[in-house]
Amino acid sequence: MGEKIVVIGGNAAGMTAASRAKRLDPDLRILILEAGHYISYSICGVPFYVAGGLGQPSDLTAFDPDSLKAERDIEARTRVRVEEIWNGRRMLLARRLDSGETFQQPYDRLVLATGYTPRRPDVEGCRLENVFTVSRLEHGQRIRAAVEAGRLRRAAVIGGGYIGLMMAEALVQSGLEVLLFERQSHIQPQLDDDLCQVIEEELGRNNVQLHLSAPVGRLCGERRVEAVEAGGKRWPVDLALIDVGVEPNTELAHRAGIALGVSGGIQVDARGCTDFNAVYAAGNCAETIHLVSRRPICSTLGTTAAKQGRVVGENLAGMRSTFKGSLETSLERVFGLSVARTGLTLRQALQTGFEADALTVKAPDRAAYFQGSSPLHLRLVWEKRSGRLLGGQMVGGHSVAKRVDTLATALSARMKVDDLSQLDLAYAPPYATLWDPVQIAANQALKRLRRR
Amino acid sequence: MGEKIVVIGGNAAGMTAASRAKRLDPDLRILILEAGHYISYSICGVPFYVAGGLGQPSDLTAFDPDSLKAERDIEARTRVRVEEIWNGRRMLLARRLDSGETFQQPYDRLVLATGYTPRRPDVEGCRLENVFTVSRLEHGQRIRAAVEAGRLRRAAVIGGGYIGLMMAEALVQSGLEVLLFERQSHIQPQLDDDLCQVIEEELGRNNVQLHLSAPVGRLCGERRVEAVEAGGKRWPVDLALIDVGVEPNTELAHRAGIALGVSGGIQVDARGCTDFNAVYAAGNCAETIHLVSRRPICSTLGTTAAKQGRVVGENLAGMRSTFKGSLETSLERVFGLSVARTGLTLRQALQTGFEADALTVKAPDRAAYFQGSSPLHLRLVWEKRSGRLLGGQMVGGHSVAKRVDTLATALSARMKVDDLSQLDLAYAPPYATLWDPVQIAANQALKRLRRR
Repeated sequence: MGEKIVVIGGNAAGMTAASRAKRLDPDLRILILEAGHYISYSICGVPFYVAGGLGQPSDLTAFDPDSLKAERDIEARTRVRVEEIWNGRRMLLARRLDSGETFQQPYDRLVLATGYTPRRPDVEGCRLENVFTVSRLEHGQRIRAAVEAGRLRRAAVIGGGYIGLMMAEALVQSGLEVLLFERQSHIQPQLDDDLCQVIEEELGRNNVQLHLSAPVGRLCGERRVEAVEAGGKRWPVDLALIDVGVEPNTELAHRAGIALGVSGGIQVDARGCTDFNAVYAAGNCAETIHLVSRRPICSTLGTTAAKQGRVVGENLAGMRSTFKGSLETSLERVFGLSVARTGLTLRQALQTGFEADALTVKAPDRAAYFQGSSPLHLRLVWEKRSGRLLGGQMVGGHSVAKRVDTLATALSARMKVDDLSQLDLAYAPPYATLWDPVQIAANQALKRLRRR
Repeated sequence: MGEKIVVIGGNAAGMTAASRAKRLDPDLRILILEAGHYISYSICGVPFYVAGGLGQPSDLTAFDPDSLKAERDIEARTRVRVEEIWNGRRMLLARRLDSGETFQQPYDRLVLATGYTPRRPDVEGCRLENVFTVSRLEHGQRIRAAVEAGRLRRAAVIGGGYIGLMMAEALVQSGLEVLLFERQSHIQPQLDDDLCQVIEEELGRNNVQLHLSAPVGRLCGERRVEAVEAGGKRWPVDLALIDVGVEPNTELAHRAGIALGVSGGIQVDARGCTDFNAVYAAGNCAETIHLVSRRPICSTLGTTAAKQGRVVGENLAGMRSTFKGSLETSLERVFGLSVARTGLTLRQALQTGFEADALTVKAPDRAAYFQGSSPLHLRLVWEKRSGRLLGGQMVGGHSVAKRVDTLATALSARMKVDDLSQLDLAYAPPYATLWDPVQIAANQALKRLRRR
């Protein structure tokens, strides 16, 4: 009989690790323990579910425990929370959340894929009814239920990160008036300011009331949230959605004595091994290396989580796989705009210690004489000394979605601005310009580099 | 007074060389001599003009001689054909095509950017009226005029390369019945067969009558083309469009004694210098290196031409720029499909001497639960021994257009299939899947590589 692998957490990283290991070594006996109601879903799809574009929560899940067992011979139990790891005895203490009873679960090898938890800001009222965060499918269901119960007129979104923006759109599409409160002078800390402005204008055009430099001081209400206080003013609302960052779920690992890294995530090597024998970690609870800054980070991306999970799955099955790291490439749709980034922003590059420069070009995304051309805002960040590309950001039409991959690929290859300029990128009038915006920006950057 | 630069040819390469040189060194006196009626147009836009989607030919031109003079201080004369180069005397013999008179034109340095000419197959009737090729805007005008004159019912497209396919679409959109005759067993020699089939189905769905393995034996007619003979049958047609390949325009250079390369194009070094002192060449008349095969090729792409022109322009202005080479990345729209490729096809890779392998995956281009998901056919070609990526091809929705750039960038960086698998590519449900199709294909390829 094969080894018993227990995977804690049944989404991007855990699910991928389990599936990959089982596919490579069918003798492994794999059990997934998941604290939530669902496994194998796309958290990125939750805002679209809230907006009402998708039918059932099950539209977002690739498997439930039954189909996972039937199709992949992997066992999964939901609503089970692991409370202790006794690695000396290769034993877990777990609790069935519905009944409250505990049980012991032996393992030969263990994978921690516990994900993250949204932070709640340190202000009064964050636990009132109708105050939500979004990190699980269940949260989306609760928000959708609150919206469908009706009588909601106005929502506050607190924090303008990816989730905040996507939920603002989902709530507008659900017919609510939406106020967005951002503590900083711009939304989207993942982007440099000039691109944030393009998004802020799009939010305005779509009736999101934007309050910048507006830290929320208090959420008010008896039982349910009734108002938000910010900037000395009080805004009546019926629902609040909080997006002020996340924390990796490391408490279980920490309590067991597993080492955490400087980023706060579980420390792992490139193979996904923790400092405990036979214990792996993958996904948003685990550290990885940022491929440009070379610093440890705790990613919040499903793409990175899935790749980490794949590597752990391969190692569980006896291969020697390594994960090289993340560029924090991300992509979102904000109303009519596509927004993407990869690598470091100028702010991050400077903070990391690079002597960096950046510029933004605005260029049409296809032949000017062709119908439907729309402007693309494209920003490049590079190292002054070497011309090495450090990052890129884009806001524009749908071509942004895969155009950012050119920069992600160039970053992986440690290309310089000069290399970008010479890339043989695709051109046809309905889709692009003879010089792609990536190259228009690279040529502008080259001009600056030569002036030095 | 600055040096006198004469540029022969006023499109992608010549125009870019002239503009770049003048911008960097405003003292240069630049004269463009162009044999056609127009300068600075997008030949790739011609099929869209023929289809009637654009208004005037001038919609396709960025400049005419007047605006070029006014905006960039560059002189251009159209309808002037250069007939001799006397480089010892730094003198050209040129003819005004409208009047027939000749004149001598001195230069200090010369740029050859003479482009290519479509081949005519060696069959009877190729010079009949209403038999067209497309390599100039004027050709598009003549075709459009023939179509607008009316009474055309049926067109034959002879050859299924890029121009053939795009013109087939343009003629369908112009209301003609279109028959496409291809000598080979599949259209699009630029793609491997399985992807050709996807395009052939799309042509069928759009009422293009496809005749494969059907070399045309004869074009028949008194004055105008009246029928095409192929496969022992006779097909009445009112118009024929020929796309059976092109030849670089090297006659002028060759007569002057300038060396040609093995590809048939004008031999140049990476800076665009010919073997004649003070004579440069750029664009589709000049050779370049294929970045994967490392063999000399004569590209037919505007993107490569523009980059070669840019490099020559910089060298004219005293910089030391080099052009690294081309991947022959190309992109086209064929009715509802986007079609792209970069690097080598499997056929080309094997011909080049690589021990190569390839596979095609069919994957959705965005989250399966998201509306509008459409299948993407993606083919990777790699070297068996090393796993090095050699090329890629894609057919699918519009995301193809910039997704192929990921592969072009990876090819430039000499990435392996394993590197592709680890790329940090962008994901959001409206635009992509958690594992991009590029990575799904790379992971499949890895499986084969590991089996060896």
